Amino acid sequence: MKTLWIFAHPEARSLNASLRDTGVRTLRELGHEVRQSDLYAMGWQPVVGAADFPGRRSGRLRVGAAQQEAYRTGDLGTDIRAEQAKLSWADTVVLHFPLWWFGPPAILKGWFDRVLVQGFAFGVRDALGRTRRYGDGGLAGRRAMVVTSVGARASSFGPRGIHGDIEDILFPVHHGVFWYSGMAALPPFVVYGADRATHADAERYRAQLCRRLRELPQLEPLSFRSEAGGDYDDDLVLRPEIAAGRTGLDVHRVRPGGRRAA
Amino acid sequence: MKTLWIFAHPEARSLNASLRDTGVRTLRELGHEVRQSDLYAMGWQPVVGAADFPGRRSGRLRVGAAQQEAYRTGDLGTDIRAEQAKLSWADTVVLHFPLWWFGPPAILKGWFDRVLVQGFAFGVRDALGRTRRYGDGGLAGRRAMVVTSVGARASSFGPRGIHGDIEDILFPVHHGVFWYSGMAALPPFVVYGADRATHADAERYRAQLCRRLRELPQLEPLSFRSEAGGDYDDDLVLRPEIAAGRTGLDVHRVRPGGRRAA
Repeated sequence: MKTLWIFAHPEARSLNASLRDTGVRTLRELGHEVRQSDLYAMGWQPVVGAADFPGRRSGRLRVGAAQQEAYRTGDLGTDIRAEQAKLSWADTVVLHFPLWWFGPPAILKGWFDRVLVQGFAFGVRDALGRTRRYGDGGLAGRRAMVVTSVGARASSFGPRGIHGDIEDILFPVHHGVFWYSGMAALPPFVVYGADRATHADAERYRAQLCRRLRELPQLEPLSFRSEAGGDYDDDLVLRPEIAAGRTGLDVHRVRPGGRRAA
Repeated sequence: MKTLWIFAHPEARSLNASLRDTGVRTLRELGHEVRQSDLYAMGWQPVVGAADFPGRRSGRLRVGAAQQEAYRTGDLGTDIRAEQAKLSWADTVVLHFPLWWFGPPAILKGWFDRVLVQGFAFGVRDALGRTRRYGDGGLAGRRAMVVTSVGARASSFGPRGIHGDIEDILFPVHHGVFWYSGMAALPPFVVYGADRATHADAERYRAQLCRRLRELPQLEPLSFRSEAGGDYDDDLVLRPEIAAGRTGLDVHRVRPGGRRAA
């Protein structure tokens, strides 16, 4: 595998940093190639702004169009193009971050916002002129996995847990970022109770992550529905015979109701 | 009302900026007080980092604990404390942003990450020592509303739309940010098809926003379940008799199944 490990934690002595170190070492010991984007260490600038599009000609800024134009003309910043080159190289992406306010830290959200531009990650078309999206796209053929940590207990992120099912909380990343741009989303690796982890807990989590990484090449991805496969109608609504009469994010999985038991 | 209008769009000539201008003017004409946080105009720095906690004493950084300590000792940055003061002043919050990658732009995500610290927005306790959370918390008594724009059509964000129901996509903000810290989440104001909006569309959206803002004081919030009200057990799992046998984010609403028709 050629793995890009994207890391978004401010502290080099944190539990997450030790998981990243262990993970990268394990992959290399297994013979895989690894490149890294340690966003804090790089001083990654996460804010989309006019400086990203030095060549833009339009008077009124539509961010997506300006990004697409700058991508096409090669005018995106060198920091953005370096990240795109890493993604183009990789066949596997690990997105490693602490879950803050039920999403990625700003520094990582801004990596999505600035790197995954129209024309590169999405908004690409097939030979028939159809938009390649949801199971296809600029990053098609790749696999991607979230590694994240939360302070709370596992039960509170379960199917009926107070914070919402972790699979639903991660839906914007799994389905909205990975699957939308063509990458298969692998089951997330979630560290619970991170705020109270002892040295023994940390050791156990590192061992679990090693096992997960050894299984990675064979790991079955989450099965989301396919746009090109005809699961949605012309209004981009799920066809009535699929998950008939049901709503909720789970209808977009191939086995709705197939989530972990409540 | 005392409204804090938080705006996170890079371009002063955008549809969103015109909606913000209209919204702020409308509220003032109605006799309400308005303060603003225009994050791009302010040059808001969204990245949580060690510079936020000049006084931290612990060797190993646990971000939440470091933030809490800096809040307690008054050592948070002046930019953070200014935002907290605005929140303390406000009884109503408008969070206005374009939806990028199914979430807020990084500049706004980083406003959550840096401003809503433990001890201020959450992690506060009642007289019995219980954590005030989900319907209660440091921002209790306030009401908050998302104003957002998406490029896609409304059908694609409907209950069975390909992108996921907009109410589920916004759950991390409505339930995870607003409700978690004690703020009642008002129904969101969503502009669809923003990428293709004509001048007439923009005019129509501005008129709809004016109507919504006139109704704001009477608007019924989304009804999420209450932790203090006893809807969850000691493992923070929804009690079995509530929304019995069901899973999905909708079980955390008081009227599960009460979402808009599919």
